[in-house]
Amino acid sequence: MAEEKTLDDLFLDTLKDIYYAEKQILKALPRMAKAAQSQELKAGFEQHAQETEGQVERLEQIFEMIGKPARGKTCDAILGIIEEGKSIMDEFKGTQALDAGLVAAAQAVEHYEIARYGTLKTWAGQLGLTDAAALLDATLKEEEATDKKLTQVAISNANQKSA
Amino acid sequence: MAEEKTLDDLFLDTLKDIYYAEKQILKALPRMAKAAQSQELKAGFEQHAQETEGQVERLEQIFEMIGKPARGKTCDAILGIIEEGKSIMDEFKGTQALDAGLVAAAQAVEHYEIARYGTLKTWAGQLGLTDAAALLDATLKEEEATDKKLTQVAISNANQKSA
Repeated sequence: MAEEKTLDDLFLDTLKDIYYAEKQILKALPRMAKAAQSQELKAGFEQHAQETEGQVERLEQIFEMIGKPARGKTCDAILGIIEEGKSIMDEFKGTQALDAGLVAAAQAVEHYEIARYGTLKTWAGQLGLTDAAALLDATLKEEEATDKKLTQVAISNANQKSA
Repeated sequence: MAEEKTLDDLFLDTLKDIYYAEKQILKALPRMAKAAQSQELKAGFEQHAQETEGQVERLEQIFEMIGKPARGKTCDAILGIIEEGKSIMDEFKGTQALDAGLVAAAQAVEHYEIARYGTLKTWAGQLGLTDAAALLDATLKEEEATDKKLTQVAISNANQKSA
């Protein structure tokens, strides 16, 4: 009989989920940077792509800590979120509202990551994986900061347009 | 020639997106309540289903304010997020880790909503839709409170299991 699944399995499953998601985000960010109209938003996406590379490395460190190969698992959620972002890019291409749509798409991505990293950090703590919890917390704080920056960009872009 | 799309179009598109998402969430919550093992989590999902009905009504009020029919638009993001939740329910059915997985799935849903309502509230303000912004803010605060409650449930469940 198969052993009962535990929180360790759930932790590993979710780690694979966000690892896959981060790789998809790494592919999406250059497209978003290219599409962005304002220099501020373009630079923001480029900077976040670099940050995301560091986040992928942290995930690889955690896989190593728990003695598992770093492998992704198809994440339908991020695929759906990125697909919606692509639709917005297509529908609003060349319009004044494009950057607002890009910011919204990026914030949906950030919030998905905030949810997952928050969960993983809590579970790492419960499983006694103190070092993993610290790495997850570092990424969580970066994602929260990125989300806040995006809100600022949304406000400053709108103010420039109405000025 | 078609008129250039504007922030009004983006606002309406995103309103349709979250309206569709809320209807999907209304269908998912009773399944999650049924699956939950702890009474606390079960009650939490039932209460949130009631709250979600009120949020759907608020969206319908906003459609009315902007003179558009209340219509949803397929939201790939929420479909992906709910699909992942279903996989967790299947894979962890009957195990001690099920409730932890349900909480994680629910927090991914909440964060999607927090992203969308945050965006819509900002745009409503920029479009001068003050009453709509207030309704969106009321829902945003409920979603943020639900997310915090879920974190508490995750911690108290884990403490009970390790006690």
